Amino acid sequence: MDKIANGIWRVRFGNPESHTPVNLRETEVRTEELAKLDCHGVSPFSLSDMVIKQSARGIYLELPLKAEEHIYGFGLQLHRVDHTGRKKVIRVNSDPVADTGDSHAPVPFYVTTAGYGVLVDTSRYATFYCGTNLRKGASENKKFEQKEIGTSEIELYGYQTTEGDRSVVVDIPSAEGIDVYLFEGPDMVTAVQRYNLFSGGGVLPPMWGLGMWYRAYSAASREDVMRLAKCFRDDGMPVDVFGFEPGWQTKAYSCSFVWDESRFPDHEGMLDELYDMNYRVNLWEHLFVHPTSPMYEDLMPYSGDYEVWEGLVPDLAVKEARDIFAKHHLKEFVEKGISGFKLDECDSSDFVHSNWSFPDIATFPSGMDGEQMHNQLGTLYQSAIQAPFEALGRRTLSQVRSSGALTSPFPFVLYSDLYNHKVFIRGVVNCGFSGLLWSPEVRQAESPEDLIRRIQTAVFSPMALLNCWRIPNPPWMQVDRDKNVRGEFLDNYKDIRDICRKLFEIRMTLIPYLYTSYAKYSIEGLPPFRALVMDYPDDPNTYEIDDAYMMGDSILVAPIITGTSERDVYLPKGRWRCFWTNEAYEGGQAYTFAPGLERIPVFVKEGTLLPLAKPLPYVSDNATFDITVRAYGDRPSDCFLYEDDGTTFEYRKGSFNWVKLTWNEGVDVERIGNYTGKRYNITDWELFK
Amino acid sequence: MDKIANGIWRVRFGNPESHTPVNLRETEVRTEELAKLDCHGVSPFSLSDMVIKQSARGIYLELPLKAEEHIYGFGLQLHRVDHTGRKKVIRVNSDPVADTGDSHAPVPFYVTTAGYGVLVDTSRYATFYCGTNLRKGASENKKFEQKEIGTSEIELYGYQTTEGDRSVVVDIPSAEGIDVYLFEGPDMVTAVQRYNLFSGGGVLPPMWGLGMWYRAYSAASREDVMRLAKCFRDDGMPVDVFGFEPGWQTKAYSCSFVWDESRFPDHEGMLDELYDMNYRVNLWEHLFVHPTSPMYEDLMPYSGDYEVWEGLVPDLAVKEARDIFAKHHLKEFVEKGISGFKLDECDSSDFVHSNWSFPDIATFPSGMDGEQMHNQLGTLYQSAIQAPFEALGRRTLSQVRSSGALTSPFPFVLYSDLYNHKVFIRGVVNCGFSGLLWSPEVRQAESPEDLIRRIQTAVFSPMALLNCWRIPNPPWMQVDRDKNVRGEFLDNYKDIRDICRKLFEIRMTLIPYLYTSYAKYSIEGLPPFRALVMDYPDDPNTYEIDDAYMMGDSILVAPIITGTSERDVYLPKGRWRCFWTNEAYEGGQAYTFAPGLERIPVFVKEGTLLPLAKPLPYVSDNATFDITVRAYGDRPSDCFLYEDDGTTFEYRKGSFNWVKLTWNEGVDVERIGNYTGKRYNITDWELFK
Repeated sequence: MDKIANGIWRVRFGNPESHTPVNLRETEVRTEELAKLDCHGVSPFSLSDMVIKQSARGIYLELPLKAEEHIYGFGLQLHRVDHTGRKKVIRVNSDPVADTGDSHAPVPFYVTTAGYGVLVDTSRYATFYCGTNLRKGASENKKFEQKEIGTSEIELYGYQTTEGDRSVVVDIPSAEGIDVYLFEGPDMVTAVQRYNLFSGGGVLPPMWGLGMWYRAYSAASREDVMRLAKCFRDDGMPVDVFGFEPGWQTKAYSCSFVWDESRFPDHEGMLDELYDMNYRVNLWEHLFVHPTSPMYEDLMPYSGDYEVWEGLVPDLAVKEARDIFAKHHLKEFVEKGISGFKLDECDSSDFVHSNWSFPDIATFPSGMDGEQMHNQLGTLYQSAIQAPFEALGRRTLSQVRSSGALTSPFPFVLYSDLYNHKVFIRGVVNCGFSGLLWSPEVRQAESPEDLIRRIQTAVFSPMALLNCWRIPNPPWMQVDRDKNVRGEFLDNYKDIRDICRKLFEIRMTLIPYLYTSYAKYSIEGLPPFRALVMDYPDDPNTYEIDDAYMMGDSILVAPIITGTSERDVYLPKGRWRCFWTNEAYEGGQAYTFAPGLERIPVFVKEGTLLPLAKPLPYVSDNATFDITVRAYGDRPSDCFLYEDDGTTFEYRKGSFNWVKLTWNEGVDVERIGNYTGKRYNITDWELFK
Repeated sequence: MDKIANGIWRVRFGNPESHTPVNLRETEVRTEELAKLDCHGVSPFSLSDMVIKQSARGIYLELPLKAEEHIYGFGLQLHRVDHTGRKKVIRVNSDPVADTGDSHAPVPFYVTTAGYGVLVDTSRYATFYCGTNLRKGASENKKFEQKEIGTSEIELYGYQTTEGDRSVVVDIPSAEGIDVYLFEGPDMVTAVQRYNLFSGGGVLPPMWGLGMWYRAYSAASREDVMRLAKCFRDDGMPVDVFGFEPGWQTKAYSCSFVWDESRFPDHEGMLDELYDMNYRVNLWEHLFVHPTSPMYEDLMPYSGDYEVWEGLVPDLAVKEARDIFAKHHLKEFVEKGISGFKLDECDSSDFVHSNWSFPDIATFPSGMDGEQMHNQLGTLYQSAIQAPFEALGRRTLSQVRSSGALTSPFPFVLYSDLYNHKVFIRGVVNCGFSGLLWSPEVRQAESPEDLIRRIQTAVFSPMALLNCWRIPNPPWMQVDRDKNVRGEFLDNYKDIRDICRKLFEIRMTLIPYLYTSYAKYSIEGLPPFRALVMDYPDDPNTYEIDDAYMMGDSILVAPIITGTSERDVYLPKGRWRCFWTNEAYEGGQAYTFAPGLERIPVFVKEGTLLPLAKPLPYVSDNATFDITVRAYGDRPSDCFLYEDDGTTFEYRKGSFNWVKLTWNEGVDVERIGNYTGKRYNITDWELFK
């Protein structure tokens, strides 16, 4: 067992494969920041606690799991938060319809309530059996109670869970060796921070990335785009990022990576107009390269041996392919002001009407096979697309549909074609366990109520995104798709729009707070969005909560699904304040809230100094925020706001400030750091005793 | 390439695994019957057409697939009939919710419209890529048409299929060698027959197995059972088999295999009463052995290393385990008159609220691992349970929830906890490609109409089963479960019951015809239920039909789903007669039929002599059938009816007759064979010119 950083150990068995997340990584372990984390200096397990062996199937790994331990993680798991007693297959998939482990972003990493983390360094479709089965004979001498005979499936299967000390068994196919990384706590959140710092720290998005996002109709023309762009500004709807869907390219399945001049004549002129209106522009794409693409011939020798949708699958683990990709993106898009991309289709499909993507047995010039490539594709793609932004010294925040292990440093937020609202909320709860960001995007809505409920979740999430690729007009004008296409609008669309605007403005209000939370992600590895169990691992009431989460250190969010006017919210120990009414609630218990259509339950920890900005219509490069500070309780703690230029990488050289707010019958402000600009003006305060 | 029987070749590569379907089989290849099939004596492929190689993942196998070829098979695939262009994983699963290949009965065997079959002899979770992807560069010089930009998922993905000559690529994990069996045609149905005869021929069920089946309430007591049993006889509802669900055992999850005397005092007395009423009794069980079972201690050394539901997983690939299992079943059940079993839970679960069963990395005394055992478990279980019946010389027809390759000789019919009616019909269409039988069982119904529609499918299927384990009273009295439990019955339940009775009687009418179809399955390997493409491989109109099928040689069945009063039916070339009205229809085209609630579209081939029996209330051991022969057309072909004692294995020694019916302005009857009894009296005939 090798200690490889403060609180991180590696166990090596046999001959590990070459193409694993750790071996393929291009980011640096944040050793310095790791050294600052609390640490007992004792590995969570000793070697004798573990079983590792080789079989015909590959590698067998067994780790202990105590009776009282609960397991979290495994990437963007959309169907369950607490994986104890479950089987999870770490396999990338675009439509994870069931609780199998399949995920847009499968990650072979878990943490437990006992306060440690485990990374199994493999790109294989590894299976984790999280205490699913006891060993033969374990129940031999058990006392059995007489049970009622079930007359439904749930009665027959429902009560069947294993009990007592068990093990986590990992089945890693094909491999002849494995590296296992153990992350010390002392608690779960610290183990996660350690994993994120090992990954390279969290991402710091550009400030504008925290504003509102709107993706337009797939079949939109230049006129349609400009009409929408003007309409948002005219209506005072804050929108920062304008997204183009497949229609911008000459070929979309597979991609040409070339503007369609018939739909978008003089597209550079159009982009200038959008930039003048302070929009950032994001372009949809995927990485399968159409024969008509200018990159096609160059990429041929550096591609896998099978086509997808008539296109090449570039091997982005090979420098040449990455360079061709990066160069085209730099020259054609990033240098022309494009702020980011939406990287679609980089997962793989099995569970919908058609299956697509390359076979698991495909081979690639790098030596990877299809299985390994599938689990790494999203990560390699993010890395290739980040390169031109690094080259220009400009941050991006972009979207990606697939990710994996060690990706916390990447400026990409996950999304899905799934759409169940509960599932989307669960994604926010879960993403923080594995160094991922997730956007519960708003697409269609079954009613204005549904639209509002979904926007509420979005504005309290890592990325506030409306993806309106199927409708030419804003959803607040008409939620029914066919009517929207026909231009038939709701009678009361102005009322709906006003509610939406208020919600967008809430997002804008929270930007300084959110930006600071992301800065902590970047520097300390602390996820900006977290399951409650991560902050309250000693409170078993939080173990199963999959419909409420922490946003930053002080705010608890509990979204509401359409069709219900009230919901229960469990507030952990301590005192809490309603974000809307400032009313106080004693934690350690659940309350029922019915906040009305325009609000969802949101709570602030007592003792917080909460900075709320006056909403801007967009976050320009030089935007400054006028801030009102809410002081909750008798002795609010100091608040540190992060401040930098918001768009470049100068912060890496130390060009940033911590703006320290201290309560002193008013707010004292102190700037600590080397950034010479000023993003925040503290203009007012309110005290709630 | 070794020729191993008439029209069957084997290609061996490397060192094939020990635990494969062929290596584990206990049945005999039917060499003699194989010799009688048409044969060109030329292997479907030459060695040079195939690629087989070893990789880190296991074995890579590639076979040609012509542009015009369509692929069928892969076992009980419930979500698709034509697998061309699709990926299929051969993995056993209890809840195959999507078109992934996961199945109750995955079979690594496919046939194509080009008239050959391929068996890849593996118990691994092999993946078949059926022409999913073209090779890199194949589309380089293609002419591309301008496509509209999609504004929905189906538009984006829907048109994406590969074209031209492709290949079938098979990914067989873990293996270091493989045997591939090639089955010559000349046509698809002959290739299937060859596969079935290689498997050991089709099963010949006992005659009573073709009657109606009723499984009773899981929580029923002795009184409840007897009340139901009497009610069927009093109401003149034909029922042959009475099934007990989990409540008969002292422990069900896992199983004790011991009668619960508190629920069923003097259970042997109850059984005698049921036998006296001419019921056959079938018992539910699964193979996970509870610590309180009398088999537990004996099975401990012959079980896998993990528990399921606190029970042992006996290794039925080991003789000792099989013997313990067979002996207990012989002594406690079969010798006491039990006619068969329902073998539940022998698949494995991933896609529902909980996952259960043993891990893929489990190990078993036989040397199999969990993956291999999962794919073989249903087959091994069937073999073990068949043994006591063989020992007593008595046939069974039983149920099983999992099966696999080479299982056509087993007297077991598959079922599922899924319940979509379309999916259930597709199961009937598909099962015949892979030597399987399937029952589209009737459980709950959303309305009396739904009940009737589902019963109609059931009575025209391999096994006519009502599985009423969730309701204490017959479904025709009340379809609403809660009301059924409370004993609140439909006002018009007598009308519903009368319709159901007529349908049950249709089944009884068809028994001689069906029994003969099963005899052909047994002797010639010809599946009794077949997709239309199997009989009409040159007619592309049949390639995608997944909602109509052939029952025996002469009858085409087209079930109706609740909520529609009419449906389209494509009748292949030739002349057809409506089963109900005898009206004639010219084939080669589709018709719309609206036959009313009490009927579904059923057609008989012109030129058929169709034997229809006077319905009996049950099929006793000595039952004889009074038969009316329907003669369709000017010159009906001879009809051969199969006849034997209906319950023993004497037929294997030649004790059976072919009853030859010849049309001669009436019906001439000739008996050919050594069976001295007589099961059919030809009492009447009707001519439809």
